[in-house]
Amino acid sequence: MYEAMCSAVKRAGAELVDPVDAEGLVWADPARPDLFPSTIQGADSLSWVQLPYAGIEPFAHHLDTRLRWTCGKGVYAPAVAETVLALILATCKNLHGYSRASTWSGPAGRQLANSRITVLGGGGIATSLLPLLAPFDCQTTVVRRSGAALPGADHTVTVDLLDDVLPETDILVLALALTRETTGMIDSRRMGLLPDDAWIVNVARGGHIVTDDLVAALTQRSIGGAALDVTDPEPLPDGHPLWSLPNCLITPHIGNTPETGLALLLPFVEENVRRFVEHRDLLATVDVALGY
Amino acid sequence: MYEAMCSAVKRAGAELVDPVDAEGLVWADPARPDLFPSTIQGADSLSWVQLPYAGIEPFAHHLDTRLRWTCGKGVYAPAVAETVLALILATCKNLHGYSRASTWSGPAGRQLANSRITVLGGGGIATSLLPLLAPFDCQTTVVRRSGAALPGADHTVTVDLLDDVLPETDILVLALALTRETTGMIDSRRMGLLPDDAWIVNVARGGHIVTDDLVAALTQRSIGGAALDVTDPEPLPDGHPLWSLPNCLITPHIGNTPETGLALLLPFVEENVRRFVEHRDLLATVDVALGY
Repeated sequence: MYEAMCSAVKRAGAELVDPVDAEGLVWADPARPDLFPSTIQGADSLSWVQLPYAGIEPFAHHLDTRLRWTCGKGVYAPAVAETVLALILATCKNLHGYSRASTWSGPAGRQLANSRITVLGGGGIATSLLPLLAPFDCQTTVVRRSGAALPGADHTVTVDLLDDVLPETDILVLALALTRETTGMIDSRRMGLLPDDAWIVNVARGGHIVTDDLVAALTQRSIGGAALDVTDPEPLPDGHPLWSLPNCLITPHIGNTPETGLALLLPFVEENVRRFVEHRDLLATVDVALGY
Repeated sequence: MYEAMCSAVKRAGAELVDPVDAEGLVWADPARPDLFPSTIQGADSLSWVQLPYAGIEPFAHHLDTRLRWTCGKGVYAPAVAETVLALILATCKNLHGYSRASTWSGPAGRQLANSRITVLGGGGIATSLLPLLAPFDCQTTVVRRSGAALPGADHTVTVDLLDDVLPETDILVLALALTRETTGMIDSRRMGLLPDDAWIVNVARGGHIVTDDLVAALTQRSIGGAALDVTDPEPLPDGHPLWSLPNCLITPHIGNTPETGLALLLPFVEENVRRFVEHRDLLATVDVALGY
């Protein structure tokens, strides 16, 4: 990743210098946010930091308004949207159940066509997912903070209407940023509003869901099931009840893989460096107050 | 199914009579093809039989050219195409593997976007599948007897070119009728032509694949894996090696379920009865010589 990022910076017409002399900083080691304070020490010319993440929680406590921050939000969305559709179709066709079987059984499952899909979050994932869902003639509702209509969605509503939408939802897709406001927003009360055959697909962050409430809902079958690419805690520890529930499918944060993720991030970083060099607006800017 | 079929026949403007007096016969019991000879005994006015199957193997030995035969080919295609995409995406995202896991693991899987998909068969399933694949910008090749271009496919080729297409295939979808010519056509030689990370998705009939050859290829990992909605033998017996191979996902012939299948078959039968009453061309006619 480091080498690839260096090439991207150079291709964009910028010069690679020591952090202390840098005007912009491209963070190429997602696993070591802790090194940030020492890295920028004495970097008095620094005005911009490009983070490699879509969700910037690992850096959240470093954010400050003296710098401009950009991240990878939206960049990985085409890859994540594929994972969402894979999980949606797997739940419709009971692939988690059949994968675990060692005997021929009866046909289970339902059609995705004409289902009611609610997407929580109106960012890149929703934008990339809607075209993938289009051939299925689903009834799609996007729930987002602003309520501004998202192209391709049948309905777009503001978050305060979420409780009205849940009872009319066959599949609830979580694809929003994790903030103070969205932490734990899918709790037992909201799961109770879903039809009892509804599935939850979470490709956002595990913290959006109150895990204990989810375990209870899955155990009591008050919802149909859950397909989780993210969990809380994450990684999900061995022996956790979610591992053994027949109506739960867990993937280990594969929304984007290192392989596909880097391929998407590189041209994006190159473009942002080019914009920085040319003093143009940057892409995927972080709102430090909102935290995403 | 019997009651629903009776209603469909009446809605189409036909009269329900005993078989012995019937001009047309709608076969509403898919599980009992053996009853056919006794049912039509003395039915001297009979000129048309509507079968409920997409593939008519259970009736194959009853076919004769004195009657006109129609079946359900193409009718279930929208439902089966959903299953095909579900299986394709499951193989791309390793959902069969993750479904079986009870511990957090690393990211595996690849993008479907820009993959090379070869569909064997140019009938209803291919026709319904191609629009579902369209948003993924795959390179699609349809292999069919006639070679007539299928709308939405990047390439359409005749069956004699199959061996040239296999080495350029990431995912091979079997969606063709089972006939003498197509039985066992995917054998060890042809699997050897596929890239070693290619997957086979079979929603047609188990007999298209030489099962022992498939078990060998999966065991030796000379192909990536197989997602099978149909098997040979079917049902797949307990303890069969395919059940325990990590790169094999088996679904028990769920391409269409009784629930979704009947909903698709009813309006189709109604339309065909109406056409019969009005002496118009029938849909989904069986070519007795070709056997589908």
